[in-house]
Amino acid sequence: MTDLPKHVEIHEEGPREGFQIEPGPISTADKIRLIEALAETGLEHLQVCSFVNPRIVPGWADAENVVAGFKAKPGIHYTALWFNANGLERALAFHDKLTIKGAIALTATEAFTQKNLHRSHAENVEAMRKQTALHLSKGVKVNRLGIMAAFGCNYSGDVSPAQVISVVKDGLAIAAEAGTEITELSLADTMGWAIPPRIERMIGEVRAQWPNLTLALHLHDTRGMAVSNAHAALKMGVSQFDSTVGGLGGCPFAGQKGAAGNICTEELVLLCEEMGISTGINLDKLIEVGRMAEEIVGHVLPSELIHAGSLDVFRKQAA
Amino acid sequence: MTDLPKHVEIHEEGPREGFQIEPGPISTADKIRLIEALAETGLEHLQVCSFVNPRIVPGWADAENVVAGFKAKPGIHYTALWFNANGLERALAFHDKLTIKGAIALTATEAFTQKNLHRSHAENVEAMRKQTALHLSKGVKVNRLGIMAAFGCNYSGDVSPAQVISVVKDGLAIAAEAGTEITELSLADTMGWAIPPRIERMIGEVRAQWPNLTLALHLHDTRGMAVSNAHAALKMGVSQFDSTVGGLGGCPFAGQKGAAGNICTEELVLLCEEMGISTGINLDKLIEVGRMAEEIVGHVLPSELIHAGSLDVFRKQAA
Repeated sequence: MTDLPKHVEIHEEGPREGFQIEPGPISTADKIRLIEALAETGLEHLQVCSFVNPRIVPGWADAENVVAGFKAKPGIHYTALWFNANGLERALAFHDKLTIKGAIALTATEAFTQKNLHRSHAENVEAMRKQTALHLSKGVKVNRLGIMAAFGCNYSGDVSPAQVISVVKDGLAIAAEAGTEITELSLADTMGWAIPPRIERMIGEVRAQWPNLTLALHLHDTRGMAVSNAHAALKMGVSQFDSTVGGLGGCPFAGQKGAAGNICTEELVLLCEEMGISTGINLDKLIEVGRMAEEIVGHVLPSELIHAGSLDVFRKQAA
Repeated sequence: MTDLPKHVEIHEEGPREGFQIEPGPISTADKIRLIEALAETGLEHLQVCSFVNPRIVPGWADAENVVAGFKAKPGIHYTALWFNANGLERALAFHDKLTIKGAIALTATEAFTQKNLHRSHAENVEAMRKQTALHLSKGVKVNRLGIMAAFGCNYSGDVSPAQVISVVKDGLAIAAEAGTEITELSLADTMGWAIPPRIERMIGEVRAQWPNLTLALHLHDTRGMAVSNAHAALKMGVSQFDSTVGGLGGCPFAGQKGAAGNICTEELVLLCEEMGISTGINLDKLIEVGRMAEEIVGHVLPSELIHAGSLDVFRKQAA
């Protein structure tokens, strides 16, 4: 238990992940309302939108209006996502409001690289070389490497630590060639293949190779394992997680919840705070925002906690 | 990791827990359909109904018709729940079909005893004395002790291992006085207060007192922690769990999912099987039954896995 972090840094991705996938339409005003409410909970990292092709992701056709519209709160890092030069330009137009950081994004399996990006891993490495050079030429730092499908892949099955380590090496080589240093490594369980022993083994083997990299996890709750995976990672000292309020994201479809989204921010916060790990987040305020998110999207979200309420509410009533 | 059990015994309570709380009405035929489908998954313990007052629990007004109606499969323990002499008589009428076992049921907190049973703990102990004697006089064995609200209580807050140990002692005294031996102790997180470190501490302290008692857990997923709690218990060698298919149970209300029910059977099975712990259950068949349960109740159930599908399905496709 001595490996537990004292503090956990939570990167809220609810607006970006949620609104890209919700059938909607969801008004720009509602997106802004959710972002501004999240900023009042104590969260310090908010991913607010995707600068992507509106024909492919109609939910983010209003990205500029959302970013222009929300009132930024000092001390909060508002971030965005983009995948190409055009997206980067759109983000840079808001460099006064957004924290603009680049990342090298690779995928652990050839099959999911093809499925998701319509290119081979080798072609993806080449694309990331160019993108990294582009970022650096614009003065945008690139210190983060992200590996998708790091725990398993719906198209090629289980993923071993050796596969992940090989792809991490590719990412580090891209950075080295471009003259930048990777300090953060994010491992994503994109399709919900992780269970706690897999988390432990992966973190153990990756750390053995690169003990100085800060590890972050992006855990989808596709099969209900995300909280237990986060717990396993916390016990190994991992202190950075992505999450989404209410469990926004995933693939809802008519009348059914569909594959779940990211780990719920409020369930992660409850777990951490009840274990004595500080998050800086007011859980009861966050639960209120989760309920707001459910009202905005107009259907039940995966979070159990937003329906039950925090333990502290009941502790106060009982006292 | 050497403490992991080789096999886990799962007690499916979906029909009993689910149909007592669903707004329904749900037809007797659908209840029977679900029970018979569950019996085809490899589950060996199925709690099929409650013999309770139909004015209080209208969902189980048809308990006799359900038990008379399903086709029993050899080798499966079909069980039922009851709370008084009348319920016991109704159950005994089906002694050829049901496995009739008694239990001593106590609650860790005075406040929840009052709220749930409208009596004090002392009055409840007295009631359990009479009920235990009644069971034994009818030739019904009483070897199980269950403690509700063992990890926390919405009406009095946190519950310590010392409180639970005190109530377990009361239960063991009831059994000793009646001349029967308790061999199984079930601890219920009735209102979703557990997190993994609380599970570890409770199991550790209870085991230190009674190393020979078989421990079972009944984990509600009220705040999304149930799978991580089960994982913590598995690592301590706990090998008996209650669960409900699809996560049936809890408190659904109009337009909202409400407080979640028990841990989902299929998510527990996935966790166990992926960790190499056998359950004897065919997960893909069970997921199909979870989808059937969702169709029968007519709304989204909490299980993420029934919407995503097992890992083995994708492994086979990828191979």
